[in-house]
Amino acid sequence: MAAIPVSTLLTCRLYAQVATPSDPLVLESGRVLKSVTLCYEVFGRLSPERDNAILVCHALTGDSHVAGRYRADDPKPGWWDDAVGPGKALDTDRYCVICSNVIGGCQGSTGPSSANPDTGRPYGLDFPIVTPRDMVRAQARLLDQLGIRRLVAVIGGSLGAMQALEWAATYPNRMQGVISIGGAGRLHPQAIAFNEVQRQAILNDPDFRGGQYYGTPGPVRGLAIARMLGMITYRSDESMWAQFGRDVRGPGNALQRGFDVTFQVESYLHYQGQKLVERFDANSYLYLTRAMDLMDLGRGRGSYEAAHGLIKARVLAVGIRSDLLFPSYLQQETVRLVRAAGGHAEYLEMDSPWGHDAFLVDFPLIAEPIRRFLDSLERTDGA
Amino acid sequence: MAAIPVSTLLTCRLYAQVATPSDPLVLESGRVLKSVTLCYEVFGRLSPERDNAILVCHALTGDSHVAGRYRADDPKPGWWDDAVGPGKALDTDRYCVICSNVIGGCQGSTGPSSANPDTGRPYGLDFPIVTPRDMVRAQARLLDQLGIRRLVAVIGGSLGAMQALEWAATYPNRMQGVISIGGAGRLHPQAIAFNEVQRQAILNDPDFRGGQYYGTPGPVRGLAIARMLGMITYRSDESMWAQFGRDVRGPGNALQRGFDVTFQVESYLHYQGQKLVERFDANSYLYLTRAMDLMDLGRGRGSYEAAHGLIKARVLAVGIRSDLLFPSYLQQETVRLVRAAGGHAEYLEMDSPWGHDAFLVDFPLIAEPIRRFLDSLERTDGA
Repeated sequence: MAAIPVSTLLTCRLYAQVATPSDPLVLESGRVLKSVTLCYEVFGRLSPERDNAILVCHALTGDSHVAGRYRADDPKPGWWDDAVGPGKALDTDRYCVICSNVIGGCQGSTGPSSANPDTGRPYGLDFPIVTPRDMVRAQARLLDQLGIRRLVAVIGGSLGAMQALEWAATYPNRMQGVISIGGAGRLHPQAIAFNEVQRQAILNDPDFRGGQYYGTPGPVRGLAIARMLGMITYRSDESMWAQFGRDVRGPGNALQRGFDVTFQVESYLHYQGQKLVERFDANSYLYLTRAMDLMDLGRGRGSYEAAHGLIKARVLAVGIRSDLLFPSYLQQETVRLVRAAGGHAEYLEMDSPWGHDAFLVDFPLIAEPIRRFLDSLERTDGA
Repeated sequence: MAAIPVSTLLTCRLYAQVATPSDPLVLESGRVLKSVTLCYEVFGRLSPERDNAILVCHALTGDSHVAGRYRADDPKPGWWDDAVGPGKALDTDRYCVICSNVIGGCQGSTGPSSANPDTGRPYGLDFPIVTPRDMVRAQARLLDQLGIRRLVAVIGGSLGAMQALEWAATYPNRMQGVISIGGAGRLHPQAIAFNEVQRQAILNDPDFRGGQYYGTPGPVRGLAIARMLGMITYRSDESMWAQFGRDVRGPGNALQRGFDVTFQVESYLHYQGQKLVERFDANSYLYLTRAMDLMDLGRGRGSYEAAHGLIKARVLAVGIRSDLLFPSYLQQETVRLVRAAGGHAEYLEMDSPWGHDAFLVDFPLIAEPIRRFLDSLERTDGA
């Protein structure tokens, strides 16, 4: 019998209680979470000095499962397996890579599908609004528990990139470097607009039931529509030409299908919509898109420009040439503002046709620059 | 008493029967419309030789009311009043400008809200799929009835630009020039994708009732969501920064509004969604977006490239720098393909930040080039 190839990276979900009734998490909104669990995973070994950790922040529908497998025979590895593992850019032979599911999420961390301690029932829309800054503050408590005072780097794409920048401004002494890919220090109005349309598709689904749909299939049509729109913004016209063109799905005359799926690109969107419905909570989709809208590095810090002056970490901002959702002018702006405030920032452009999702699907394009950037960060043993 | 300013251009809706049971319109799909009415308007005077007409083709939610007013005290003129009128680029002192509501529409022409002659009830989804080529063939019948064998030009933006190109390939001897603004000879997959998401918002609204919602409010939430998404694609990130930025609507803390309208850009989208619901039929929205998807100048003509060889008119293709929906590479491609086939084509770029809608809101930028292009077209008295 042939041997089953075994992944060299096995992982499991871990859980940390980062807020309790006696030590609650006070959110930016002023509301309080009396109990917060973060689900996280660890890849590689933490050094005795606890000075080799890299924190990965995930994107909208991501989770703690960045890389590797839970079981050797899992069909698919984690969502950024190209980036994280032995010998890879985030080299787990060298670094200890940590990733936690964000608060507001639905993959093990406290979110709207969690039980509200006041009622014992899922929060639904009683869950408080959270922001990337809130997410980061919860993650900082996790690192406190792990005894990690200072990170080598915080890295993320999209909403993860926003968290990485928020980390740099909120805890300037807790990391050497920040890598922000396809993100921004604040969300631009076009992206707020795309988010709002996606939320409306969920909120107007009659199966949404005001957010208390747990125990029912829930707003599956609305969530699928939201995901279909999201996917357009994660791709590019160029990549859709390459992958689908104007190809018609299956046999038969395109003129005689009415409003059934006709083009391959439609079929792709429907498939992606269905896939998300199977794994994601609609309320989390609402909360996490709203968190993106509310991302503003400048809030409470004088101005957007001034907030960049808080950053002490070396910043690598990666723009993607074909990014529709976070056009590369945003990453260039981050670099300009950090430099204007006297900090260190480098810009790197991914010459990929794959749009926003390039940070996932075309990671090899930036693997070496990221490895070099990490190499350039001196290890220190604390702030 | 102050005199009420009176528009110099008064207009009224006219109706033509362009298909009858004895002379039906056979559509590209093979299906047949036994009765077709086109609603149209005429601006300026047709010359005795009937050789001074310009046909304007409207965009997705447009209608025959291009310019002027129905009554002197109408608060607003037609949708392209900047372009059409005495002394304007489409000078009604010189040209006779004609515009008809497309088949499939809901502003007086036969569409899904019209009575099906077989049942006496509105067609709903029994209406056949129509294409820009079908729209053009119906318009050609209107011109036949008006005794206009040859046009000075056909002009349109967006879906109107598609019709203009389809005119040039279907009836090469019937016009001197074609002006295609923010359009293409075929729809690209990203735009098909945006259309499909919009349709799904309508089709999944429980009030859609399989398209037979007449006599009820209909799928107003779904149609509003569709329009909200459409509006994003008609604008640009740049124009949204200029108009809305990250401004929060009204007083109060943005962090405490949950999923209510928070940002001005959201408020704008909701307003646009509601406005459309009041004036547009959801089924027409389905049919006309599908017509855009099905636009393919090459269908039945050997190839996309070969179809451009049919065009005898002089072509002016106008691209808009900031157009998200029809990026300017599409108009440049039209020029390249017409020239490659031996025809005459010119490219003009609108340096406007207003996105796809620039052809409406920033028309003065191209008024003079369009006037000059029209001047360059020699009048002839027939093919």
